[in-house]
Amino acid sequence: MASVAVDAPKFVDLTHHLAPEVLVRKTNPLKDIIRISWENPHLVSLANGDPHHSLYPIRRVEYEVASAADEDPVSAWRSLGASAPTQLLTSSRDADSPRLHQASLAYGHGVGLPDALRTVTALNNAYHTAPHHVATMTLGNADAITKVFRMLGSAGDYFLADEFTFGPMPIAAEAHGIKWVPVRIDSGGIIPEELERILANWDSRRGKRPHVLYAVPCGQNPTGSTLSLERRKQIYEIAQKYDLIIVEDDPYYFLQYDPPSTEAHSTQTQLKPFPVSFLSLDVDGRVIRIDSFSKIMAPGLRLGWITSQPAFQQHLVRFIDLSSQQPSGFPQALVSLLLDGWGLAGFDRWVRSLRLDYQRRRDFLLGLFEREVAPGGLASVDVPEAGMFLWVRVHLERHPRFTRKAEEVVEGARTNARELMQELFEACIRGGLLIVPATVFVLPTETGYEEEGSVHIDDRSNFLRATFAGSEETMAAGMPILGKVLKEFFADPSTARIDATSTVA
Amino acid sequence: MASVAVDAPKFVDLTHHLAPEVLVRKTNPLKDIIRISWENPHLVSLANGDPHHSLYPIRRVEYEVASAADEDPVSAWRSLGASAPTQLLTSSRDADSPRLHQASLAYGHGVGLPDALRTVTALNNAYHTAPHHVATMTLGNADAITKVFRMLGSAGDYFLADEFTFGPMPIAAEAHGIKWVPVRIDSGGIIPEELERILANWDSRRGKRPHVLYAVPCGQNPTGSTLSLERRKQIYEIAQKYDLIIVEDDPYYFLQYDPPSTEAHSTQTQLKPFPVSFLSLDVDGRVIRIDSFSKIMAPGLRLGWITSQPAFQQHLVRFIDLSSQQPSGFPQALVSLLLDGWGLAGFDRWVRSLRLDYQRRRDFLLGLFEREVAPGGLASVDVPEAGMFLWVRVHLERHPRFTRKAEEVVEGARTNARELMQELFEACIRGGLLIVPATVFVLPTETGYEEEGSVHIDDRSNFLRATFAGSEETMAAGMPILGKVLKEFFADPSTARIDATSTVA
Repeated sequence: MASVAVDAPKFVDLTHHLAPEVLVRKTNPLKDIIRISWENPHLVSLANGDPHHSLYPIRRVEYEVASAADEDPVSAWRSLGASAPTQLLTSSRDADSPRLHQASLAYGHGVGLPDALRTVTALNNAYHTAPHHVATMTLGNADAITKVFRMLGSAGDYFLADEFTFGPMPIAAEAHGIKWVPVRIDSGGIIPEELERILANWDSRRGKRPHVLYAVPCGQNPTGSTLSLERRKQIYEIAQKYDLIIVEDDPYYFLQYDPPSTEAHSTQTQLKPFPVSFLSLDVDGRVIRIDSFSKIMAPGLRLGWITSQPAFQQHLVRFIDLSSQQPSGFPQALVSLLLDGWGLAGFDRWVRSLRLDYQRRRDFLLGLFEREVAPGGLASVDVPEAGMFLWVRVHLERHPRFTRKAEEVVEGARTNARELMQELFEACIRGGLLIVPATVFVLPTETGYEEEGSVHIDDRSNFLRATFAGSEETMAAGMPILGKVLKEFFADPSTARIDATSTVA
Repeated sequence: MASVAVDAPKFVDLTHHLAPEVLVRKTNPLKDIIRISWENPHLVSLANGDPHHSLYPIRRVEYEVASAADEDPVSAWRSLGASAPTQLLTSSRDADSPRLHQASLAYGHGVGLPDALRTVTALNNAYHTAPHHVATMTLGNADAITKVFRMLGSAGDYFLADEFTFGPMPIAAEAHGIKWVPVRIDSGGIIPEELERILANWDSRRGKRPHVLYAVPCGQNPTGSTLSLERRKQIYEIAQKYDLIIVEDDPYYFLQYDPPSTEAHSTQTQLKPFPVSFLSLDVDGRVIRIDSFSKIMAPGLRLGWITSQPAFQQHLVRFIDLSSQQPSGFPQALVSLLLDGWGLAGFDRWVRSLRLDYQRRRDFLLGLFEREVAPGGLASVDVPEAGMFLWVRVHLERHPRFTRKAEEVVEGARTNARELMQELFEACIRGGLLIVPATVFVLPTETGYEEEGSVHIDDRSNFLRATFAGSEETMAAGMPILGKVLKEFFADPSTARIDATSTVA
C-alpha cells in the first residue's frame, strides 16, 4: 500500500463519516499470514495457494499505441489513419525485467499494482497540489463512486447533489437507503448560497444533516457547467463549516475548452490552464477525488483512481480486498507502460491535443445550433467550457399550449413543462433524432418532499441534452432535425399531440 | 443480454430470496433512452456521451500465448521455456473484423462482451448440463460471490457454509449483516445429514431459517475435500426441501486428480471424468454457479462468470450496471480470442494437462509428507482429489501437554487444542516454515452461539493447510522442516513454550 509521507500534515479526523458496515468489516485473517511472509522473506512458504507463474499461458502482451511525439498527436492520429505513427509497449516474461508482466498476471493487493499507482501519483502531482493524499486504483468512476457512497452512507443518511445529475450514481446509493437533497444550480453549476441555505436551515426532524456532497466540477453531466475557482473555494468553506465530505467526480477534467470566438487558440501552448480541483484546495482531507482513464484513453479499460486522505484509503482498500479485488492487470500494465513510453510531457501533449479535438467538435455543434436552431427563437444554449454536453434550453413559455397554474397552488408543478417536454422528445424521435430530455437527469428525492416556495423541478425541466462527442456527420444530421421539429412543435401542437405515443416503444 | 431459449423450462420462482436492496434498486433511466436507439438504428443519436472510437489511442493488442496443439501442452510450456510453441492472438482496429477491438474498448453492458459470453457459454455447454441457465461475466470469484451475497442477503439473514472455509467471503457478507451457521464436515466435505439436522431443528426464535448455502464442491479451501456425486444429490434434495439457494463456488473444478497410486495415468485420455456440478443437477434454478479463469489462466486477468437462472441474472446485471460495470475489455477479448484460437478441444487439452501438472505437484508433496513427516506418527493426511491444498491433521492428543476438561463442562472448548496449534504455528516459523493453522479458516459465527452437545470448533482445529501450488524446491524445503518441528514440539514442549511469541511480529 502506498505509504504516508513522513511529513504528512495532520488531516482532520473524519472517520465519523464512515458507514456502520465499514466499521464492522473485519480484515481477512489470511492477510496477517501473508504479511508474515512479506516481513520474513527467508521463510519457506507453503501458505499461499496462488497458481505458479510458470503456468500462466501468456508469454507476452504487446500494445501498439498512438505516438505522442507530434505537437498535436490526436490530430495526427485521426487524420493519418493506418499510417499514423505508433509506439510499441510490451509486457513480457522474457523481457529484461519480467516483474511487471508477472505482477500483472498474479493476485495483488486491493490498492492496485505498484506501477499503476506510481503512474497515477505522477499525474496527481503534475495536475494537482495534494502531496499528502494517496491513490487507490479503481475500475472506473462508476465503481469508485458507488464504493465511496457505500463507505460513507447507510440507510437514512442524506447526500447532496446537483438537482440535475448523472442518474445512475444517485440510484445506486438509493438502493442502500441514501436519500438525496437537490442543490439549485445555474449555468455556473452549484450555487454556493443555495448549498449553504440547505445546510443552515436543515430541519433535524427530517433526519441527520447531509454530510456528503456529490459534485462534478467540470463539464457537469448533463448541464455542461463548470464551477469557477471562486465557487469551488466557497463550496469548500461551506464543507468545512458544515462538516461535509466532497466526492469530486471529475471525468471531464482534461476536456477543458476556450471560448469559441478565440480562433487564435490553435496550439496547445495557448490553452487556458487546467482548473484548480477541490483536491488541490483540500487542507482537511475531506475531498475524495475520482479520476478515470475512460474519457482520455478508452472506457473499455475500466480503470481509474481515487485520491483521498490515507484514513479513507485504508477502509476503501479493505472493502476492495473483500469485493472486486484490484483491477485487471492488463489495463494497469498498459497505463504504466504508456506513461513510461510517452513520458509526462507526451501525456500532456495528448490530453491538450484531445482538448482541441473536442473543442472543435463543440464549436462545430455550436455553429450548427446557431444556424439551424437559434434563428427560430425557440431554444438557446450556454457555451460549455468542458465535457461533452450542450444543455439546450427550450423556451416552452412561447408554446401555444404552455399553461401556468394560479399562484395559490403551492404544491407540485405549476406548469405543464414536463408533459410538453415529453411530447417534444417523442416528436424528435418521429423526426429521426434521439436527444435526451432533462427529466431523465432529475435527482431522485424523497416522495412528497419539497421546499416551501421553491419552483418545482418539473417547471425547470425545459432542457435537452445533446452530445458533441460523436461524429461531425451525426451532428450535421441531428441539428437540422431539432430545428425543424421545434418549429413544427411550436407551430402546430395539436397535430403533434394526436399520435404522440404511437411510434415510441 | 443473453436471451432465454424459447423452450426454457419453467424454473421455480425464487425471487423471494432477493434482498430488499435488490427490490428497491431502480434501473438507470438513461438505459431506456439507449434502448430506443438500439431498437431504432435509423435514428440520429445525440444521446450517448461516449468518447469517439477514433480517439482511443490503442491500434492493436497482440497476445502471445501458449500453443495447445501438443498432447500435453502444459508440460511442453514449462519444459521448453523460451522455445515452447506459441500462438499469436490479435485484437486490432485494422483487422478484417475490428468489431471485437472496438467493443472491448468502448462502454458496454453489465452482462459482459458478447464474444466473452459466447466463450463461457461454450464452456458451460461442454462441461455441464444446464442449457437454460445464462451466463454473466464477473471480475473473478471474490467479486461474483460478494455480489451474489449482497443480492441474496440483508441484515439478520442466516447463511450456511462449511465450518472451515475461505475466510474473506463470509467476512464480506458479515459486514452487511449476514450471520453464518457452520455445517459439520468430514474428509468428504459437507455432511448432508448435518446440513439437514440444522434446517430441520432450526429454532425460529433465533431468526429466519438459513436460505443460502455457500459451498465449494471441489478441492475445498482449506480442507481439500471434494463432494461425491451422492452427497451433491443429497444436498440438492435438502436445498429443494428447505428452499435453499446454493452458491456453488467452483474455482478448482478443472483441477481434478486421480489417486496417487495409479501410475498408469500418464495421459489425458485416461483421466477420470470431471465431476457433475450442482449446476448440472439444478432443475429448479436454485443454483448460482461461480467460475473463474484465475486458476486455469492467470488470477491477474480478474475474469470469471456466474451461471444462474435468468431471473437472478436480471438483478445481477442491474447491480453490475450500477457498480463495477462490465469487466475490462482486455481480459474479455483475450479469453474470446484464446478459445477461438485453441478451440474447445485445445482448451480441454490445456486443462487436462494442467490437471496432470498439479497432480504431479500433489504427489510430490504427498511423497515428501510420507518420507519426512508421517514416520513420526504425529500427523496424517487424506489425499486431496482436487484443488491446491493438503489438510494436515496434527495428532495433538499425543502431545504431553494436551489437556481435556471434564465431561460436565458443556460450554466452550474442552481442550487446549487452539493454544497448542498456535504454539506449533509459531514453532514452524522459528524453524523457517510458514504454514497456515486451521483457526484462520474457522467460519465466523455469532458470539455465544453453540449447539448443545456439539464439539467446539477449537477442539477440531488441529489442522494445518499446506499448498502444493508452489514450486518443488519450496515443497522439498518445507516438509523436512515440518517433520523436524513436529518432532521437537511433541518431544520438548516446555522449551518451545518459553519463547513462543518472541519471533513472530
